[in-house]
Amino acid sequence: MLQMPPAAPGMREDEIDTPALVIDLDAFESNLDTMAALLAPTGVKLRAHAKTHKSPIIARMQMARGAVGNCVQKVTEAEILAWGGIPDILVSNEIVGAAKLARLCALSRIAKVALCADDAGQVAAIEAAAADAGIRMNVLVEIDVGAARCGVQPGPDAVALAKRIAGSKHLIFGGLQAYQGSAQHKRTPVERRTLIGNAIDASRRTVEQLKQQGLECAIVGGAGTGTFQIESHSGVYTEMQAGSYVFMDADYARNLDEAGHFVSTFRHALFVLSTVMSQAQTGVAALDAGHKAVAVDSGMPTVWQRPDLRYTGASDEHGKLEFGSETMVPKVGEKLRLVPGHCDPTVDKFDWYVGVRNGRVECLWPVAARGGLS
Amino acid sequence: MLQMPPAAPGMREDEIDTPALVIDLDAFESNLDTMAALLAPTGVKLRAHAKTHKSPIIARMQMARGAVGNCVQKVTEAEILAWGGIPDILVSNEIVGAAKLARLCALSRIAKVALCADDAGQVAAIEAAAADAGIRMNVLVEIDVGAARCGVQPGPDAVALAKRIAGSKHLIFGGLQAYQGSAQHKRTPVERRTLIGNAIDASRRTVEQLKQQGLECAIVGGAGTGTFQIESHSGVYTEMQAGSYVFMDADYARNLDEAGHFVSTFRHALFVLSTVMSQAQTGVAALDAGHKAVAVDSGMPTVWQRPDLRYTGASDEHGKLEFGSETMVPKVGEKLRLVPGHCDPTVDKFDWYVGVRNGRVECLWPVAARGGLS
Repeated sequence: MLQMPPAAPGMREDEIDTPALVIDLDAFESNLDTMAALLAPTGVKLRAHAKTHKSPIIARMQMARGAVGNCVQKVTEAEILAWGGIPDILVSNEIVGAAKLARLCALSRIAKVALCADDAGQVAAIEAAAADAGIRMNVLVEIDVGAARCGVQPGPDAVALAKRIAGSKHLIFGGLQAYQGSAQHKRTPVERRTLIGNAIDASRRTVEQLKQQGLECAIVGGAGTGTFQIESHSGVYTEMQAGSYVFMDADYARNLDEAGHFVSTFRHALFVLSTVMSQAQTGVAALDAGHKAVAVDSGMPTVWQRPDLRYTGASDEHGKLEFGSETMVPKVGEKLRLVPGHCDPTVDKFDWYVGVRNGRVECLWPVAARGGLS
Repeated sequence: MLQMPPAAPGMREDEIDTPALVIDLDAFESNLDTMAALLAPTGVKLRAHAKTHKSPIIARMQMARGAVGNCVQKVTEAEILAWGGIPDILVSNEIVGAAKLARLCALSRIAKVALCADDAGQVAAIEAAAADAGIRMNVLVEIDVGAARCGVQPGPDAVALAKRIAGSKHLIFGGLQAYQGSAQHKRTPVERRTLIGNAIDASRRTVEQLKQQGLECAIVGGAGTGTFQIESHSGVYTEMQAGSYVFMDADYARNLDEAGHFVSTFRHALFVLSTVMSQAQTGVAALDAGHKAVAVDSGMPTVWQRPDLRYTGASDEHGKLEFGSETMVPKVGEKLRLVPGHCDPTVDKFDWYVGVRNGRVECLWPVAARGGLS
C-alpha cells in the first residue's frame, strides 16, 4: 500500500509527521547547478543516475540543466522514468530474463533505451528479445575497470563482444560502460586518482582497439559523485553517471580533498526528519527512525548541526542517541534532522519526498520508483 | 507506487521474476504450529510481533493457532492490522505526537488498542488525546529490563507512572512492557539465561510493588524468538512477543542451544529469490539482489543449500558471490534462494510475498504495512 504523505504544503517543518524524507530545496537546487557548472567547460555530458532519486521530477530538473538523460539499474526504474517523460535512458547494468528484456524492448517504443552486456549468451538473449519485438536495441559492453563485480576484461574480450553486438541486425553497439564503483568512497584524492587513472587507461585502450575494428563508441560512460571530476577531464569518458551529488550523504562527506579537508563541492540536501520518542535514561534518547527509515549499510547517520548528539545504533524502529552531560538534552517530541549514511537506499524506504524551503513545506513528490527491484 | 507482483499462482518457482520475497509455505506453517505447541503447556499467550510480517493474513493465521492478537511498533502497522480484521493490538512502543495519538484513539473504535509509555509528559499527551476522542486508552508502562533504550526503571519509577495512568479517567493501566531486545541474539544459552533472568527478576519485583499499591498487570509482555522459552516459563510474563519465528533468518540461526548446536526449533521459511546476472570473472558472480533487496544490518545473507557459494558483499543493486574452483559455477540466469541476515527489514523492502509449495507458486500476499514508518 502507498503510505499517506507525512505533510502538506504550507506546513512548518516542525509540523511534518515523522519519520519523513525531507529535501532542503535550496541546497538541492544548488547541487544541481554546481554539477552543471562543473561539467559545462569539459564538454562531457551528465547522464545522472536515477537509482539515487527514483523520480522523473528530479530527472527532468537534471535535464533542464543540460543532462542528456538518465541512467538506471533496473527495468522498473526505466519504466517509471519513461512514463514520466524522460526521453533517453541507459540501464547501466546487465538485465537477465526474457520477461524483463521484453519489457525493455517494449519501452524502447516510447523512449530511447539502452542496456549493458558482459556475456555472449546474454547478447543472444537481448537479440532474441529485440527480434521478437521488432526493434533494434542499443547495447553497451560493460568492462571491468577495477571493481571486480561485473564486466568483461578491457581490450580483446570487450572488442569480441562489441563485434558480436555490431554484427547483429537486431542490435546496435552503443559504446562502453566503464564504472569504477570501488573508487568512489576512497578517502584520499591520491587513492581515487590512482584507481580512476587505471580505469581511464583501460577504457582508452579499449576504445582505440575498437576503432581499429571500425567500431565507434557513441557513449563511454561511468564515474560517480566521488570521482567525476577526474573522468570528466580524461578525454575518453563522454558521459558522467553521478547520482548522489543531488543529495549527498554522510559517507560521501567523509571524502577528503587535496588540502586534506572534507570535500564540500555539494551540500547536504536530504534528511530523515525524526522525533525523540523516549528520554528515560541519562545520556540516552531514542528516535523514531531506526534502520527501516535510514540506511546503515555505509555507517550510521549523523545529526544535522548537532555534533554533540551521536546516533550510535539502529534497530528496526529505534535510533539510539547518546550524548554527554554538557549537551542540551533532547526532549521527547523534539524533531531532529538526520543526515543518512547512504542516500540511495534511504530514499528507497519512503513513498514521499517532502520539499522544504525557509522552514516551510513547499512540495510533496512521490518516490515514484520506490521498491522497483525488478 | 505499488510494484507489480513478480509471479502468478501455478507458476514454477524458477519462473518467478526476481528479486522476489518467497515464503516456503510448508516451513512457515510448521513454524506457526511449533510455536503454538511450545506455548500451549505454559499457559502463556502468544501476542506475535507483526513488525516482522506486516500482514493481517499472517496475523490471522497466528490467531487461529491461539495468539491473543498482535503487537506492532508503529501506528500505521496498527491501522493495517485493524483494517484487516485483527481485534486486539498492542503498540509495544512509545508513540509521540498529537496526530499519531489521535489516529490511535480513532482506531480504538474498531479494535482493542493499547500502547506504551515511559514518560509522564507522554502520559498527559495520551490522556489529552483520549479525552478529545471520548475513549479510554489502555496504557502499559515500559520498563527498561536491560536493553538501555526506552523504558523507565523497574520498581518505584514504574509504580509512580502506573499510578499516574490508573488515576486518569481517560486511561486504563494495562500492565508492563518488559522486552529485553539485546538478549535475543546472544549466541550461548548461558548469556541469554543470565540477561533474561535479570529481566524476569526486575519484572517480578515491579509486579509485586504494583500489587502492593492495588494495581494489577493484565499484561506483562516481552520476549522474542531468541528467548521466549525462558520468559514463557517465568511465571511472571503473560504474553510472548516473538515475531521472527515465522520466518527465521541467518542471524537467529547462529544462536546455539544447550548442546552447542545451532538452534533448530524453527525452519528457514523466508527467502529472497535472486538471479545470477553476471559471471564474467573467475570465482565471482553478481546477483540481482543487493542491499535494496536484502537487509544487511545483521550480516550478509547466506545461499540456501549452497555452502560452496559465499555472498560476500552487497551494493545497492548487486550481490557479490564468491566461490572456489571445486564449485559448480553459477550460470547467468540461474536462480538462487538467499536466506536474509535479518528478516524484518528484508520484508519491508517488498510489496508482495510469493507463497511456494512443492515448487509451485500457491499464493500472492501483499506486505500490507510495507513502509509503514509513522
